[in-house]
Amino acid sequence: MSQLTLENIRQAAEVLRAVARKTDLIYAPKLSSSAEVWLKTENLQVTGSFKVRGAYYKISKLTDEELAHGVIACSAGNHAQGVALGAQKRGAKAVICMPDIAPIAKVEATKSYGAEVHLVPGSYDDASTYAQELCRKRRMTFVHPFDDPDVIAGQGTIGLEILEQLPDVDAVFVPVGGGGLISGVAYAIKHLRPECKIYGVQAAEAPSMKRSIEAQDKLTLSSANTFADGIAVKHPGDLTFELVNQYVDGIVTVSEDEIAAAILFLIEQRKLVCEGAGAVSVAAMIYDKVPELKGKKVCCLLSGGNIDVNILSRVIYRGLLASGRRAEIRLTLPDKPGQLAAVSGIVSKCGGNVVGVNYGPSGMDTALASCVLNLQLETRDFEQIGEIHGALEAAGYHLLRA
Amino acid sequence: MSQLTLENIRQAAEVLRAVARKTDLIYAPKLSSSAEVWLKTENLQVTGSFKVRGAYYKISKLTDEELAHGVIACSAGNHAQGVALGAQKRGAKAVICMPDIAPIAKVEATKSYGAEVHLVPGSYDDASTYAQELCRKRRMTFVHPFDDPDVIAGQGTIGLEILEQLPDVDAVFVPVGGGGLISGVAYAIKHLRPECKIYGVQAAEAPSMKRSIEAQDKLTLSSANTFADGIAVKHPGDLTFELVNQYVDGIVTVSEDEIAAAILFLIEQRKLVCEGAGAVSVAAMIYDKVPELKGKKVCCLLSGGNIDVNILSRVIYRGLLASGRRAEIRLTLPDKPGQLAAVSGIVSKCGGNVVGVNYGPSGMDTALASCVLNLQLETRDFEQIGEIHGALEAAGYHLLRA
Repeated sequence: MSQLTLENIRQAAEVLRAVARKTDLIYAPKLSSSAEVWLKTENLQVTGSFKVRGAYYKISKLTDEELAHGVIACSAGNHAQGVALGAQKRGAKAVICMPDIAPIAKVEATKSYGAEVHLVPGSYDDASTYAQELCRKRRMTFVHPFDDPDVIAGQGTIGLEILEQLPDVDAVFVPVGGGGLISGVAYAIKHLRPECKIYGVQAAEAPSMKRSIEAQDKLTLSSANTFADGIAVKHPGDLTFELVNQYVDGIVTVSEDEIAAAILFLIEQRKLVCEGAGAVSVAAMIYDKVPELKGKKVCCLLSGGNIDVNILSRVIYRGLLASGRRAEIRLTLPDKPGQLAAVSGIVSKCGGNVVGVNYGPSGMDTALASCVLNLQLETRDFEQIGEIHGALEAAGYHLLRA
Repeated sequence: MSQLTLENIRQAAEVLRAVARKTDLIYAPKLSSSAEVWLKTENLQVTGSFKVRGAYYKISKLTDEELAHGVIACSAGNHAQGVALGAQKRGAKAVICMPDIAPIAKVEATKSYGAEVHLVPGSYDDASTYAQELCRKRRMTFVHPFDDPDVIAGQGTIGLEILEQLPDVDAVFVPVGGGGLISGVAYAIKHLRPECKIYGVQAAEAPSMKRSIEAQDKLTLSSANTFADGIAVKHPGDLTFELVNQYVDGIVTVSEDEIAAAILFLIEQRKLVCEGAGAVSVAAMIYDKVPELKGKKVCCLLSGGNIDVNILSRVIYRGLLASGRRAEIRLTLPDKPGQLAAVSGIVSKCGGNVVGVNYGPSGMDTALASCVLNLQLETRDFEQIGEIHGALEAAGYHLLRA
């Protein structure tokens, strides 16, 4: 049985040179007013996440006989692509089991690395049961997404890179789902630079590791409803629970809105696309979840960038509303000709740009001879929205709550 | 007067180590089926674009007396931030003139580097005239966005980096507006690796350099209406025209839709945010504008990432429609209770997700006792949209053209 050691992590780094990128560490001013922050950009890793590191290292250690039987994994996310690419590079067959509701984009990406994808009706647990049966039947090697010393050693190579790229780093924020990533990173860093703090970040809607550490017992959450699907894990691993308990200084949580704001910040300020799970480390810094880092050098690990574009589109829209660059205005209009033109004119005179209109008879709460107009606007900021409100009211229009 | 030489570019590289990042070169499989493509990620440069290179190098060569008078530039875009940061790093005052319609985000970003921003009523040309007057009056140094040998030498450092990062590169695609970037890159690369081809890429709506080279005469376009505002330049520079004429192998153009598709590709496949100007090089490769690159090693220069988020949001929406992940469906419903529920049920049974609804009495083209329903859906692909259409028609509903 393999063991997690520093030597093992160093060997993983050697092996991974053939497959993984040594991702850039990028300085991010403006992210925090009190600390200096760098971003470890594993969203720019091949397959769009760190997962290929652990998966490939695990596969690299298999015997020829094991390779001949192939590998199997259960994942609809980043682990699927990591295992598929890892197996492809080693010339081994990979079977990836996914729940049949998996997005086409993820299925296609996984197939593009040569894997055989089995879509299993039902939930993730059904797919997992199916995968374990198939594994036994075909004598394949099961590649666990996190609870495996070689997988953890592979993720730990990120810790070595951070220390090489920023030798005097004071603290590292790491996303936590099952705990494989933070286990490897913390193990490597605490052995080489014990004074560096390691903080885990979980979605407030899926704090399985945090709760388990607090209870000093591995707990299972009844739900894990976060759009950061990469860390929506209900139960920590056995090995990862022990490692986090031993090497991690604390775990904080971030809300869904905080994650969304972090994604928008990274797009606007750093030109980087992150998925929800990938951005939680940045959310923790922006929202100052660990206040004692003033003046410190902090690294936020961006674990992945595989976000569904429909979700991204919603995150951006929400962020635009939250920052005053989109607005929704609702008002009653007297039901007579020319009113829509008049309102539109006022909006455009204030520099607002109408991008959506909804117009119809009003309900019981307004005068019978009036209609309700909903306008969606592109705006510059809250000041401009205020000007538009003011100009409409000055012209005698009655604004309703949006 | 300064001259463009390889020595000058090498000196610029030395000077820029204090300010600019040596941006990563990232391999981009899937971008082309015939060539191997790498991305030079100047969108990840400080200030979000390559412009800081030329601006800082120019400012670094000023005498103490010149520095004491400060520098001035006219730009509402990336050049503004480059000059502002460059001046700040050298402890010089910077005045940036912008047309007063400049987006707040750009004004704020420029101010954040300590520059004094003058908002000039009118067009870019008005701001430019104003800047030149102020420059004379205050004896400041004008930093031209492209037509200056030191600015060009600064941008040329990207050419040195590409050759270091990919020594056997066969071709480089470079966005072209005024021509400063491609002049520097082409000069450096053609002197060190003359067999490497250099291609310029312009927006089809603003092909000033392309037309000028074809005519062998510097032409002025009557309009430059592209959302790639970073390369919306109507007239090439004197120096850049000569350099492009001498060192560049060809200039191709890309349409607005092609640019938008390239932006979406970079977000989804490479987790990188590019502005329109920054993505034209990728658009040229995706749409195979230079077919003779089969099997070659190609570098696409991503020049910048400063895209307005409202624009980005539209680009994504358009891209989702174009790839079948959003759909708009329009149909007539008999005006009786339960119809909306029935239709929604059919859509959801097919896995479509309703994200917008519009419902009202129909016009003259449909039966009197019917209503028109507009649905906006999140969908998986065109196949699923087809299934939804089929299921609705099978249930007796009449689909209208969207």
